Amino acid sequence: MAHVYGIDAAGTALLSDAVARVKAIAERHAADVDAKGRFPEEAVGALAKEGLLGLCVPKEMGGLGQGPGAFAAVGEELATACGSTAMVYVMHVTAAQPIAVSTTLAGKDALLRAIAAGTHLTTLAFSEKGSRSHFWAPVSMLATDGANFTTDAAKSWVTTAAHADSYVSSAQAPKAGSPLESALYLVRKGAKGVRISGPWAGLGLRGNDSAPVALEGLHVAKGDLLTELGKGAPAMLEVVLPWFSIGTAAMAHGLCRAAVAATARHLSEAGFEHTGGKLRDFPGLRARLAEMNVRTELSRSLLGRTIASMGAPAEDTPLLVLQARLAALEAAVDVTDLAMKACGGAAFSKHLPLERVFRDARAGWVMAPTVDHLHDFVGKALTGLPLFG
Amino acid sequence: MAHVYGIDAAGTALLSDAVARVKAIAERHAADVDAKGRFPEEAVGALAKEGLLGLCVPKEMGGLGQGPGAFAAVGEELATACGSTAMVYVMHVTAAQPIAVSTTLAGKDALLRAIAAGTHLTTLAFSEKGSRSHFWAPVSMLATDGANFTTDAAKSWVTTAAHADSYVSSAQAPKAGSPLESALYLVRKGAKGVRISGPWAGLGLRGNDSAPVALEGLHVAKGDLLTELGKGAPAMLEVVLPWFSIGTAAMAHGLCRAAVAATARHLSEAGFEHTGGKLRDFPGLRARLAEMNVRTELSRSLLGRTIASMGAPAEDTPLLVLQARLAALEAAVDVTDLAMKACGGAAFSKHLPLERVFRDARAGWVMAPTVDHLHDFVGKALTGLPLFG
Amino acid sequence: MAHVYGIDAAGTALLSDAVARVKAIAERHAADVDAKGRFPEEAVGALAKEGLLGLCVPKEMGGLGQGPGAFAAVGEELATACGSTAMVYVMHVTAAQPIAVSTTLAGKDALLRAIAAGTHLTTLAFSEKGSRSHFWAPVSMLATDGANFTTDAAKSWVTTAAHADSYVSSAQAPKAGSPLESALYLVRKGAKGVRISGPWAGLGLRGNDSAPVALEGLHVAKGDLLTELGKGAPAMLEVVLPWFSIGTAAMAHGLCRAAVAATARHLSEAGFEHTGGKLRDFPGLRARLAEMNVRTELSRSLLGRTIASMGAPAEDTPLLVLQARLAALEAAVDVTDLAMKACGGAAFSKHLPLERVFRDARAGWVMAPTVDHLHDFVGKALTGLPLFG
Amino acid sequence: MAHVYGIDAAGTALLSDAVARVKAIAERHAADVDAKGRFPEEAVGALAKEGLLGLCVPKEMGGLGQGPGAFAAVGEELATACGSTAMVYVMHVTAAQPIAVSTTLAGKDALLRAIAAGTHLTTLAFSEKGSRSHFWAPVSMLATDGANFTTDAAKSWVTTAAHADSYVSSAQAPKAGSPLESALYLVRKGAKGVRISGPWAGLGLRGNDSAPVALEGLHVAKGDLLTELGKGAPAMLEVVLPWFSIGTAAMAHGLCRAAVAATARHLSEAGFEHTGGKLRDFPGLRARLAEMNVRTELSRSLLGRTIASMGAPAEDTPLLVLQARLAALEAAVDVTDLAMKACGGAAFSKHLPLERVFRDARAGWVMAPTVDHLHDFVGKALTGLPLFG
Repeated sequence: MAHVYGIDAAGTALLSDAVARVKAIAERHAADVDAKGRFPEEAVGALAKEGLLGLCVPKEMGGLGQGPGAFAAVGEELATACGSTAMVYVMHVTAAQPIAVSTTLAGKDALLRAIAAGTHLTTLAFSEKGSRSHFWAPVSMLATDGANFTTDAAKSWVTTAAHADSYVSSAQAPKAGSPLESALYLVRKGAKGVRISGPWAGLGLRGNDSAPVALEGLHVAKGDLLTELGKGAPAMLEVVLPWFSIGTAAMAHGLCRAAVAATARHLSEAGFEHTGGKLRDFPGLRARLAEMNVRTELSRSLLGRTIASMGAPAEDTPLLVLQARLAALEAAVDVTDLAMKACGGAAFSKHLPLERVFRDARAGWVMAPTVDHLHDFVGKALTGLPLFG
Repeated sequence: MAHVYGIDAAGTALLSDAVARVKAIAERHAADVDAKGRFPEEAVGALAKEGLLGLCVPKEMGGLGQGPGAFAAVGEELATACGSTAMVYVMHVTAAQPIAVSTTLAGKDALLRAIAAGTHLTTLAFSEKGSRSHFWAPVSMLATDGANFTTDAAKSWVTTAAHADSYVSSAQAPKAGSPLESALYLVRKGAKGVRISGPWAGLGLRGNDSAPVALEGLHVAKGDLLTELGKGAPAMLEVVLPWFSIGTAAMAHGLCRAAVAATARHLSEAGFEHTGGKLRDFPGLRARLAEMNVRTELSRSLLGRTIASMGAPAEDTPLLVLQARLAALEAAVDVTDLAMKACGGAAFSKHLPLERVFRDARAGWVMAPTVDHLHDFVGKALTGLPLFG
Repeated sequence: MAHVYGIDAAGTALLSDAVARVKAIAERHAADVDAKGRFPEEAVGALAKEGLLGLCVPKEMGGLGQGPGAFAAVGEELATACGSTAMVYVMHVTAAQPIAVSTTLAGKDALLRAIAAGTHLTTLAFSEKGSRSHFWAPVSMLATDGANFTTDAAKSWVTTAAHADSYVSSAQAPKAGSPLESALYLVRKGAKGVRISGPWAGLGLRGNDSAPVALEGLHVAKGDLLTELGKGAPAMLEVVLPWFSIGTAAMAHGLCRAAVAATARHLSEAGFEHTGGKLRDFPGLRARLAEMNVRTELSRSLLGRTIASMGAPAEDTPLLVLQARLAALEAAVDVTDLAMKACGGAAFSKHLPLERVFRDARAGWVMAPTVDHLHDFVGKALTGLPLFG
Repeated sequence: MAHVYGIDAAGTALLSDAVARVKAIAERHAADVDAKGRFPEEAVGALAKEGLLGLCVPKEMGGLGQGPGAFAAVGEELATACGSTAMVYVMHVTAAQPIAVSTTLAGKDALLRAIAAGTHLTTLAFSEKGSRSHFWAPVSMLATDGANFTTDAAKSWVTTAAHADSYVSSAQAPKAGSPLESALYLVRKGAKGVRISGPWAGLGLRGNDSAPVALEGLHVAKGDLLTELGKGAPAMLEVVLPWFSIGTAAMAHGLCRAAVAATARHLSEAGFEHTGGKLRDFPGLRARLAEMNVRTELSRSLLGRTIASMGAPAEDTPLLVLQARLAALEAAVDVTDLAMKACGGAAFSKHLPLERVFRDARAGWVMAPTVDHLHDFVGKALTGLPLFG
C-alpha cells in the first residue's frame, strides 16, 4: 500500500526503523513531559542520534536528503506519540530550510553538517509582540552598524527557546518602507543580548519549550544574514511557509491518528456490566468515530496531494499548501473534540491519553498563519485580491 | 498539473474534447431540464454520439476501456453543467459494470457492444418499497418456473426509468434464507410486467427520470441472470458499490465546483453603488468561499487517493471507497449551503444557477448507502464489528 | 401552560378561533400556492375577514389592540401552514407600525380604520438595487417640488408587490449628507410612476408576491410623508426593525415547528417490511429530531424573553431583538436541513411537506438585516463599536 | 430589568450581597484551586457562612426557602468565578432535595437544620463502575440484614468525595427485578466501609474533589433510607434529575458568561502596534463573539422558561428540563471553544482565564445524563417511545 505522502523506499525504511525507535522513546515520556511542562530531551536526543535532525539536509552535507513527503511522514509519526517532540522537530526541520538555501550566510556548510550530525538544533523566531500573529510583518528593525547591524526585538513566542542552538529570526531591513521589506538572520545560542524574557505555560504542547525572547542590542554580523536585505518576505513566504505548513499539517494528523486509535480501542473494549454490551454497540458512538476517521483521512489526502504538487509545482501549488495547513488545523481540533465526546469520562479523567492530545491539538490553531489568516488568504486568492492588501 | 483522479493521456484528451462538447450542450439545457423536470435528451444523446456511454467498456467490445479515474473525471465535469445528466450517466456506467463482469448473462458481448455504440442506456433498479434504503436487502423474490423464474417487485426509485433500455435489478434467490442471498438480473425495456407505477417529483435532479417501477409477474429467463443464484450481494457490494460510490462522489464534486465558481464570480463582480465596494471586500464572505473550496478539494483529494487505491487494491481500499462517498455527499450539501449563504438574494432568486445546484446536491444524501449508512459501516469497520450485523 | 410569547386571554382565544380558521384555509392551498408561485389569496382574504389585518392596530381605530406577543404567536401559527401567507402578513403588520405612530401622514386615522377593517393591505419597500441588503441606506432621493416631492427609485424586492394597497417606502431626504438622513413615505396603489419592473422566482416563499418595483418620477405629497425629513433612519431602526424582527423570527419558528411535527410523524410511522421496525428505532434519527426540537425551543424561548423585554424596555432590549432574529433565522435553516436529513427520500421526493418548508426557510436568510449583518451588529455592540461605522 | 430566571426580590438581594461576597472570594482562589487540583475551601466556607448552603431548604428548617430560580441564579454566578466551587455547590443543593422530601429518613429535620446552618455539606453518589454513565441503573444491591441492610458498591465518581458530610447514594432494592427497582440511602462521613478508592485528575473542574468511592460491607440502617424500597428511580428521575439539570445548566451558563466577558474585553483592548488597530476591528472576530453571546442567551432563555414551567408544571415540563440541560452543556462546550478561537495565543498561553473555563466546560459533557442520553430521551419522547426501553 503506497504511503499517502508518497515517500520512497528509503523513507519507508526510516519509518519502520529509526522513527519507530524514536517514537517508542517519545511515547514513554510523553505524559511526564506534559505533566511537568519539561523539554522532551530523551526523544530529541534520540532524533539526533538516529540522524533524523538531518532528514532534509542535502546528502552532500551529510544529511538524509529527503523531501517534504518524508518530513510529513516523520512529523506525523512523532505526533502520534508526543506532540511536544513533534513540534520541536517540525520547527527544527523548517528552520533548517532557509539555512540550506541561503546565499548570504557565512559558514553555511559547517552549520548544515552540524545539523545533519545531530549536534545543532535550530528553530524559528518570527512572531513579535507588536505585530502579534502577523509573522510576515516584523516591527523590529536592523540598524546599520558599519558593515554589520544591531537590533532590538520582542519575539513573542519562540519554540525550543532554551534548548535551540540557533534561531532563524526576522526584522525589517534598515530604512524599510514597510514591514514586508525585511531580512532573515541567524541568532546563535549564548549571543550577548539574547534573553528569555518570561515564562510560558500553555494549555497544550507543554514540553515544546516555548518562551518569549528579548533581543536587546544584539549584534548581527553581515555573515549572519540568511537573506539579502529586503528579501525576508519571499524567504518567509516561499521557503519557510511551505515547509512549516507541511510539517504542522502532518503533526496535526499525527494527533488525529492518536485520537482515532485511542477512541477505536476504547469503544471496542469498554462496556457495561449490567447489559454485557460494549460502547461500540451504540450507533451514535460509532458514527462519531467514523466522522473522526473521515476527517483525518480527508486532510491527509489533501496533504498528500499537496506534497506531490510541491514535487512538480504548478500554479495552484501555493494555494494547496495554504489549504493543507488550514484543513489539518481544523481537523485536529474537531477530531480531538469528537474523541473527548465519544470517550466521555474515561477521556476527561485522564484514563486515556486523549485529553493531552485534545490540548495539544489546540496549539496549531494559535500559530500564524492561523485558521483565520488562511481563510482570508484563500478567499483573497479565489476572488483575485492581493494577499497582503 | 496532474489530474487529481490520476487519468492518463487518453482520458485527458477526452475531457478537453468529447466531454467538453457534451458539457456545452448539457449546460445550455440544464435550466430547462430542471424547470420542466424533463429528461436531458440532448446531453444524453451527445454522450452516446461521443462514445462516452462506452467509457468503461473494454476496448475489445468497442468501448474506450477507461477505468474509475476517467469515470470520476467525466462524471464530475458533467455535474458542473447539469446534475441530472450526470446522474443518468453515473447510473449507466455503474450498471454496465456487473454486465461486463457477468459470467451468466446470455448475449453479454452484444449488449456491451451496444452500450459502447451508444445505442443502449442502462441503469440500476435495487431499492424497494419494503426495505427502503437498505438496497442490499431486497424483499422481492425470484420464483422458480421450470429452468427460468418469475418475480414481483415494487422498486421504489429507478433513475432513467422511462428512458433506459435495461435495468440491472435485484431479488432474493429462490428459497433464500435471508435477503442477502440474492441474485442480479437484467430487465429489458418493454418486457411484459414492467410498469412505471407512479409519478415522481423531487427537490433536485429533476431531470433524472426517476420513478417507482412495478414488476408484476415478470418472466426472468435463466440467461437474464447477471449473477449466480445467491451471489447477488457480493456483486452489489464488490462491483456495483465501488463504481456507484466513485461516480456519485465525483458527481457531488462537480456540483461543489459549480458552486465555488459561481460564488467566486459573484463576490468578485457584485458590489455596492453607495460605497463602490465589492462583495469580496467582506472578510466573512471571503472566508465562506475559502471554506467552500477547501471542503471541495479535501473531498476530491480523498477520491483521488481512493481511485489510486482501487488500481492497486489494499486492505483499506473498501474503507476508502465508503469514506470517499461519505465525504463527497457531505461536501456537496455543505458547500452548496455555504454558496447560498454567501450569495444571498442573488442565489435565492435564481439570478445565479446556485439554487439548482443547491437542490441537486441534496439528492446524493437520500440514495443508499446514505450518509447514515456510511457512518455506520465505517464505524463498524473501525471497531471490529460485522458490517451487516 | 403559559404561551411562550406571553399572550393574554384575548390573544389565546384568537389563536384557537380566528387564527385556527385561517390556518386551515392556508394549509389547504399551501402546496398549490408554492407550485404555481401564486398569491395566497384565500388565506389573505380570510385574514382580512377574521379581523386579523388589524391585530396590532389600536382598538380606538377598530383594531384588536394586540402587541408584539400576539403578533409573534399569529405569525408563527400561519407559518406552520403556509410560509408565503405568513410572510405577507408579517410585512403587513410591520408596515402598519410606522403608519400607526406617524405624526406627519395625512388621513392616518382613515387608513388605520381601513387596515383594521381588512380592506387595506400594506407592505414595506426599503431595499434598493444600489445598496443591496443595506436597507438602512437608501440611494434614492426625494427631490423638492414646491411643498411636495418627487422621487425615482429601483426598489429591489417588495413583498406583496402586486397585491398591496400601499407601500411604506424610504428615500434620502432632500440634500441629505448621508444615506442615513432619510424619510419614510407612503406609496399608494395605482399611483402614477409605480411599476413592477421585473418577474421574480425564488427558491422558497414562492407565493409571497415579491417583485422589483420601479418608482419613476413619483409624486410624493407632503402629507404622504410618514416621518419628518431626516427622521427615516430612527423610524426604520426603532419602529420597523423590532416589529420586522419579531415577526420574521416567529415566522421562522412556525417553519421549524412544521418541520419538527412532520419529522416526528414520519419517524413514528414509516418502517421496514423486512424487519418490522420503524424509523424511530434508529438512535441517530431520534437524536436528529431531538436536536431539531431543542433548536426550535431555544429560539422560541429567546423570542419570548425578547417580547417580554419589549413590554418593559431595558438597556439590553435592542440587543435582544437583534439576537432573536439572528437565532431564529439560523434555527429555521438548520432545523429544516436536519428534517431533510432525517426523512431522506420521503422528504426529497415531496411525499412529505418538508421540502417546501426547507425552501421557505432559506428566505429569511436573504432579507436584511441578514445573519451576517446581525452578527456584525451584535459583535459591535459587545465590543463598544458604533453599529453603523 | 427582570432576571432571566425569574427570581424574586429576596433572591435579587442575595445576588448583589451574599453571593457577590462569595464570588469575590471564589475568584481570588480559582486559579490556585485549578493549578493544584485542590478543594475550594475558602469559597465553600464562605457559602456556608453566608447561609447559602441552605438556599433551597425550607424556611421552617432555617433555610432561605428559595426555589429553582434562585438556585440557578446563584449557581451561574458562582461559575463565572470558579467552576469547581459551582460544581460542589450544585451537587450539595441537588442532594439536599431528596433529603428535604424524604418520608423515610430518620433525623431529617436535624439534618436540614444543619445544612441550613452551613455545618453539613452533602453530595450525590449515583454512578457506578458497572453501569458507567447509566446512573439510573445501579448494579449495587441492598442486602437485607434483619430490619436493616448492607451493601457493596463501586461508585465511580463522587463529587466532594473527601469533604462531604454525607452522600446521597443509590442501590437496587433487595430482590429487585431490574436496576430500576432501586432505593436511595444516606451515607454518613466516617461510616465504616466507606473508602475513597483511587485518585482522580481531570481535564477541568480540578478542584471539585471528585473521586471513586468504594462501599464495602456498608451498614445501611432502615432510617438511612431516603426512599421506600423500589422507589429510588422516581426519586432520581423526578426529584434529583430536575434540580441537577437546572443547577448544572446554570453552571454551564456561568462558564459561558465568563468566556463572553473575557473575550469581549480582550477584543476591545488588544491590538496591533504596526497598524494601531484593535482585534475588534476584524469582522470575523466580532462575529465569533456575537455567536458566543447568542448561544449563551438562547440557552439562558430556555432555562428561564423551564424554571417558570417548574413553578406551574405542565405536560411539557419534564421535556423542557431535559432540553435545558442538553442545550446548556452544548452551549458551554461551543462557547468556550469559540472563545479559544477568538482569543488565540492569549487564551492558549493562560494570559486570559479562558483556558480554565474551556477545560471546566467539558466536565458537563461527561456527567450523566450526558448529551447523548439527553438526545436519546428527547427523541424517544417526541416519537412516542418509552424513555428506558
